[in-house]
Amino acid sequence: MGHAAAGKAVIGQSGGPTCVINESLAGAAQEAAGGGVITQFLGARHGVAGIMAGDFVDLDAVSKERWEKIARTPCAALGSVRLKPGEEECARIFESFRSNDVRYFFYVGGNDTAETASILLGLARREGYDLKVFHIPKTIDNDLRVTDHCPGYGSAARFVAQAFMGDDLDNRSLPGVKVDVVMGRHAGWLTAASALARHDDEAGPHLICLPERVLDLDAFCSDVEAVYRERGRCLVAVSEGVHDADGNPVAASGEVDAHGNVQLSGTGALADFLVGRLKEHFRAAGVDGLRARGDTFGYLQRSFVGVRSETDAEEARRVGATAVRLATTTDATDGTVAIRRTGEGDAYDSEDFLAALSDVAKVTKDMPADFIDGDSDVTAEFLEYVRPLAGPLPAVARL
Amino acid sequence: MGHAAAGKAVIGQSGGPTCVINESLAGAAQEAAGGGVITQFLGARHGVAGIMAGDFVDLDAVSKERWEKIARTPCAALGSVRLKPGEEECARIFESFRSNDVRYFFYVGGNDTAETASILLGLARREGYDLKVFHIPKTIDNDLRVTDHCPGYGSAARFVAQAFMGDDLDNRSLPGVKVDVVMGRHAGWLTAASALARHDDEAGPHLICLPERVLDLDAFCSDVEAVYRERGRCLVAVSEGVHDADGNPVAASGEVDAHGNVQLSGTGALADFLVGRLKEHFRAAGVDGLRARGDTFGYLQRSFVGVRSETDAEEARRVGATAVRLATTTDATDGTVAIRRTGEGDAYDSEDFLAALSDVAKVTKDMPADFIDGDSDVTAEFLEYVRPLAGPLPAVARL
Repeated sequence: MGHAAAGKAVIGQSGGPTCVINESLAGAAQEAAGGGVITQFLGARHGVAGIMAGDFVDLDAVSKERWEKIARTPCAALGSVRLKPGEEECARIFESFRSNDVRYFFYVGGNDTAETASILLGLARREGYDLKVFHIPKTIDNDLRVTDHCPGYGSAARFVAQAFMGDDLDNRSLPGVKVDVVMGRHAGWLTAASALARHDDEAGPHLICLPERVLDLDAFCSDVEAVYRERGRCLVAVSEGVHDADGNPVAASGEVDAHGNVQLSGTGALADFLVGRLKEHFRAAGVDGLRARGDTFGYLQRSFVGVRSETDAEEARRVGATAVRLATTTDATDGTVAIRRTGEGDAYDSEDFLAALSDVAKVTKDMPADFIDGDSDVTAEFLEYVRPLAGPLPAVARL
Repeated sequence: MGHAAAGKAVIGQSGGPTCVINESLAGAAQEAAGGGVITQFLGARHGVAGIMAGDFVDLDAVSKERWEKIARTPCAALGSVRLKPGEEECARIFESFRSNDVRYFFYVGGNDTAETASILLGLARREGYDLKVFHIPKTIDNDLRVTDHCPGYGSAARFVAQAFMGDDLDNRSLPGVKVDVVMGRHAGWLTAASALARHDDEAGPHLICLPERVLDLDAFCSDVEAVYRERGRCLVAVSEGVHDADGNPVAASGEVDAHGNVQLSGTGALADFLVGRLKEHFRAAGVDGLRARGDTFGYLQRSFVGVRSETDAEEARRVGATAVRLATTTDATDGTVAIRRTGEGDAYDSEDFLAALSDVAKVTKDMPADFIDGDSDVTAEFLEYVRPLAGPLPAVARL
């Protein structure tokens, strides 16, 4: 396969949205428009579902001005999909590519998306069909391997930080115990970003519960009580993915969900369960009339309009462009675009590099040990890591 | 009582926070600093609780530069309180005023706060003690009478609008049924602001359920099903205050809350209950595998750092200054500051006027009939009303 083989390209978006996912789409489309190797750049509606149904959008028809607006719009402009295609579906996707003379496939998503891309690549190889396949990373969960961080994470981290800044001020105004549940099924990256909200010594979150550690309910309640007795209040950040020593989700251990559902997002079950447990614990500990509340930040973390990290947006744009550039100007036939950090702190900078699809497919990346402090906090190293990704936060001041 | 009687002033903040509540504090303090009639401007920590405990902050010591930072910080900088003082507590508050030679009392809050101010005023009158008492309005609920709208509402409306814009895009990306629960115990003003998110014909919320209307669960499920069958998705805005025909909160009708708690905020119970009901309904209607989720926006609506309406902020600053100006330069001895709209649409403008404490104390204001369209929508008149208060929203674009 030559590196300048002319043909059509298809791009799709998959998995949960982010606030900058369309930056990658815009970056890829604008890079493709300049090259000449890609004869037509097609967008698949709802990822592989659109490819199977032949539901494509001609992205070449989108004006540069319109791309700028779309890029600033959260959530998959092409529509997304949760489908992980099986053997038969992969064959249909491949037939769609062949019949449309598609020679380039770009798929924006997380580790499941990378796996789908990898399967399609294997199928094309077996059929002797020239197809370049590139994965463009995206996930608020920040749990892809190899890359320093994932596009989408910085903006979600920023949302979580601003939410905790506000909720901490709320909790100072009307003191009590407050539990906030943050997205992130497998890894604690997004929950950990709540630590960015600590703008002074009093500021919470005072406890950060990550899925990388076992959550023991009794220890949890005692920890909250200790903070409460010291400060007269306690703000807690809890990952939706927290689990007991056997790996069972904490919320599922309660009778909270009347429908037997262990779905983690789109429900307040975990926060309500923990708040109920805390009320029981404090009552038993002789603290009457505890004001305890729980919030679940939910889908706002990945979709809220008007809050995003500009660094995240720039990198999301860049990885889209890099994928197309690698596909059209180098001999690389497949892979994922990863990010390497080239500067720290105020001198933060980064660059893209090519990694293997197999490096990111399937498996996710937990927070490393040196980012986690004990059972319920993060380290200064983690804060240094995350601060430039979220960008400078709004200033607040107290009397 | 002369209109220029010299003496100390106390200001307090009460009830739930807003994102611009400290603008009013800054406005009052800066106005007091200029006059000379107020010999010392004291802030009471946690409202009447601080007055009883003698816990005051000298606000004259705060620099102008620092006021600007504090003004931009959400949630009560002095701390807030939910306490509605009884007879004995009122006597203690009054003694605190007398022993500190306090001649001016400003209380920032909602209708309960106005009632407390009114009771204290009556006590001072009976004791023949010269005390000027002014209520400074604040509530994200927007449910105070007389005034066109309440400081704090515009910023919360803006947050809700941006949240729904994002969640609607999320719901387009991965279609299904989504229920979002919005704050507002008695009135639907904040839930209604979700309609600002409709940036095109497809955009949700597709149903808006207000506490001004009875929520019949069967009709609710059928309405959601009708939208879902037409559009393949349905985004619903529900007020936390929705109730059945007998006035019982909807969430309390379910077995959702294991702790027998009818608290409305700080729990995901209502959203989870409605989602559970919808799943049952759709299953019975032959729709299998419905993707249904619920989010509860919670305390983020009143505290989120970095999202506020500049119009709201300016008005909040102004009502604080107006209260002090009325108290120190006119014969008025008491009252609440209300807002009158003096321009519509792009020419939106407003001015303050003095109203009686008794006009806003105790009772709240529902949305008027001409702002509500049928059982589950708002009118164009309401959108005209709310748009300038929330301010211009971020632009979004679709392919």
